[in-house]
Amino acid sequence: MKIKSMEWLSLKEMSDGLCKKKFSSLEPTQHLLDRTARYDHAIKSFIHVSEHALTQAKASDARRSRRNATLGPLDGIAVALKDNYLTADMPTTAGTNATGWTFAAKDSACAQRLRAAGCVLIGKTRTHEFAWGTTSPPVSNPWDIERIPGGSSGGSAACIASGFAPLALGSDTGGSIRIPASFCGTVGFKPTFGRISKAGIVPHSWSLDHPGPLTRTVEDAAIAMNTLAGYDARDPACQDQAVPDYTAAIAHSSKNFVIGIIENHFMDQNTPEVQDAVDASIQALRNSGAKIIYFRLPLLAYGLGAIYAIELASSGAHHDSAVNAGHSSGYQKDVRALVEMGRLVSAVDYLKAEQVRSLLCEEFKRIFDQVDVVISPTEPMTAWKKGNEIVRIGEQNESVLAASWRLTYPFNLTGLPAISVPCGFDKEVMPIGLQIAGRPFDEASVLRCAAAVERLLDLKQRPLMAHDALSL
Amino acid sequence: MKIKSMEWLSLKEMSDGLCKKKFSSLEPTQHLLDRTARYDHAIKSFIHVSEHALTQAKASDARRSRRNATLGPLDGIAVALKDNYLTADMPTTAGTNATGWTFAAKDSACAQRLRAAGCVLIGKTRTHEFAWGTTSPPVSNPWDIERIPGGSSGGSAACIASGFAPLALGSDTGGSIRIPASFCGTVGFKPTFGRISKAGIVPHSWSLDHPGPLTRTVEDAAIAMNTLAGYDARDPACQDQAVPDYTAAIAHSSKNFVIGIIENHFMDQNTPEVQDAVDASIQALRNSGAKIIYFRLPLLAYGLGAIYAIELASSGAHHDSAVNAGHSSGYQKDVRALVEMGRLVSAVDYLKAEQVRSLLCEEFKRIFDQVDVVISPTEPMTAWKKGNEIVRIGEQNESVLAASWRLTYPFNLTGLPAISVPCGFDKEVMPIGLQIAGRPFDEASVLRCAAAVERLLDLKQRPLMAHDALSL
Repeated sequence: MKIKSMEWLSLKEMSDGLCKKKFSSLEPTQHLLDRTARYDHAIKSFIHVSEHALTQAKASDARRSRRNATLGPLDGIAVALKDNYLTADMPTTAGTNATGWTFAAKDSACAQRLRAAGCVLIGKTRTHEFAWGTTSPPVSNPWDIERIPGGSSGGSAACIASGFAPLALGSDTGGSIRIPASFCGTVGFKPTFGRISKAGIVPHSWSLDHPGPLTRTVEDAAIAMNTLAGYDARDPACQDQAVPDYTAAIAHSSKNFVIGIIENHFMDQNTPEVQDAVDASIQALRNSGAKIIYFRLPLLAYGLGAIYAIELASSGAHHDSAVNAGHSSGYQKDVRALVEMGRLVSAVDYLKAEQVRSLLCEEFKRIFDQVDVVISPTEPMTAWKKGNEIVRIGEQNESVLAASWRLTYPFNLTGLPAISVPCGFDKEVMPIGLQIAGRPFDEASVLRCAAAVERLLDLKQRPLMAHDALSL
Repeated sequence: MKIKSMEWLSLKEMSDGLCKKKFSSLEPTQHLLDRTARYDHAIKSFIHVSEHALTQAKASDARRSRRNATLGPLDGIAVALKDNYLTADMPTTAGTNATGWTFAAKDSACAQRLRAAGCVLIGKTRTHEFAWGTTSPPVSNPWDIERIPGGSSGGSAACIASGFAPLALGSDTGGSIRIPASFCGTVGFKPTFGRISKAGIVPHSWSLDHPGPLTRTVEDAAIAMNTLAGYDARDPACQDQAVPDYTAAIAHSSKNFVIGIIENHFMDQNTPEVQDAVDASIQALRNSGAKIIYFRLPLLAYGLGAIYAIELASSGAHHDSAVNAGHSSGYQKDVRALVEMGRLVSAVDYLKAEQVRSLLCEEFKRIFDQVDVVISPTEPMTAWKKGNEIVRIGEQNESVLAASWRLTYPFNLTGLPAISVPCGFDKEVMPIGLQIAGRPFDEASVLRCAAAVERLLDLKQRPLMAHDALSL
């Protein structure tokens, strides 16, 4: 059976279609592979497309054809993984071709969970080397291929926005899931630190790295979370916390939500178009019955120094033997500088950074004593043109790197769950993301609020725009 | 009523005497103050003796005289505190007279708990500056005043061994409770990291510092633990773990104990006299029904580097503003060097040290899956003569600093509870300590095993020897 625009089916719609046997897994899998083959030369979201995808789809169809088969919602669904997730049947490069690194051909914890759920692992998406940075060269933004898709999970966001898959995994150390989600107009969710196992993901910075899903709808993120979340002893940071049914959680009303707005840092240096879209989203939530409380959090002034110290030091420690062996000379220039810079961070500065982090956690705890979620823009601006190094916001020039993770990194330092959900477009029809953060391990409230935003704003033009860009 | 040798009464005996009204609190308090005034010029265990002690003793007696009064076991008991515990009614110096430091005149969490339990806080004991090092100049060892008492809680151990108080508090970052306990023939207990609040203790190294009691008997340590242990939100490291009745715990039989011996590191480089005393203790436990299992833990070879990096960096961070302001020029020479050296530790080395620490915790967890406690000497040798900088063990020379915390620091790195209990004497009648370590938050097993050792060995000469030294 031919389904119109099968590429834009949500994971839920695809899952329902499979369940009701409107189509087999082979049909959408083949369709997505064809679409990728046809258009990804312009987007470059995939570094590797699996030669085993159709076999996996057929295996899912075989499972479904068995009498009394009861398959989970991910069975037969095509999923792409960022190329820093180890996979048994696809090569992993973590974006590097430097000598000295080999990545085991075995499944990361997330890949194992997806496979156990019956997913079709269709390919690996591009990331900037070792998941550094907020661009993902050579990936293009599907909304305007002259623009960056954001990073470092730029390949995953571009893949989702291009209609190459309904679900992709990313990783987020300072914003690397939410930044590309915001720039590419997708949903990107970084759950609480310790909620999803990092086992088998090439490390960037141990205490800041978060795995998470990128999707086109909040419901799809909830479905993915039901499979991805949960304890794993192989990741020392993974927490043994009860996992709720996230799809059930988002069905609840958000009428009595209490929403926090942190006026400094998050709301005082955004482009007017971003600020307008975010204000409109907050107004829509208020109109729907949510209560808004305003805060100031002056300590955020020290956050950037703290995350730089922690991130550079942790990455420096991970790459130390490679640097000692001279292998970092083969890294990309910007990544080499960042990795080698890690050696210059003193332990005294590192410990002070950890203290700022502890204080920041306490301050956020105080805010979350009063509110269910905290809302801000995900990014102070929309995706910039490739090659731009400075962005002008109001009267100030800011480096694109500093600007692009300014609003996301506080939730890496604190480990709090945070999502980016599309909330509008600028005049050039580039997507704007709304960031919603919650209490530790309260992903349910974050997803519920994001689902409410999605419902209230009902942004229909999104996939069509991406389609236009691809038709160029 | 006159009690013979009131100075050598255990805390339990003193508590029972008070309870049965054999004497008032004023009597032993006055006796201990008199004894301190008479002998401490030779020992120098106190830096400050409280002018409020007798008032506190009278207040306890007044509480006891009330009809139907039910007082706790510490009410009216004299307690000394290491001079890095803040106290409201006594000055705190943390052993420094450098400019730039003022210590608040308010009670530390432990002082609050002791006061709430009715204790008489009789004075502050000397520590080496900022609790550094394994000597405590100018304190002498009561067994031989030509020798060091160990450090940095040397004042507390000397105070207990001299019969100046039945209970003193110490702090332990690399062995600073257990080392002086071993050298002075007292019990010294470092419970699990996070078991006792560090709030109001001048920090040495946040992630390594442990408060704990020094006493003359294991039962007294258990009584003190019943009051000191427990959650305190003011110490971010403090854990909300149920606190058992430790005195009840030590009453249980140790017949079916399973004891681990780690043959490398702990048992392969001790003086013959120390090794003999420890072997005899283990044999006594075996004879009493305990099972012994032998292990090797090669990873311990990396432990010293790890704790140096963590300790120097943490101390460096704590003193960073003082160093920047030039105040460290007023520190004692050795401490200044150690504190300023902290700046040279890189964050990369710090993080690698933390990784060694994590691996070590895992290795110990594996051992504690099979055993209740791990036993070793506390120190590879007995207390050395003041001024010695090298100790000869077997064919090897070793710096006294390196030798003296070699066996204790693994339990600071891992945060596991560890006690030193007297287990014999060398030919010069200097005390030897046995170290018993346990699972996280299983202080009960550690105390129970230590009580068994104490019972089996029945070392009676201890306090008399100290008395002889004082009579010089």
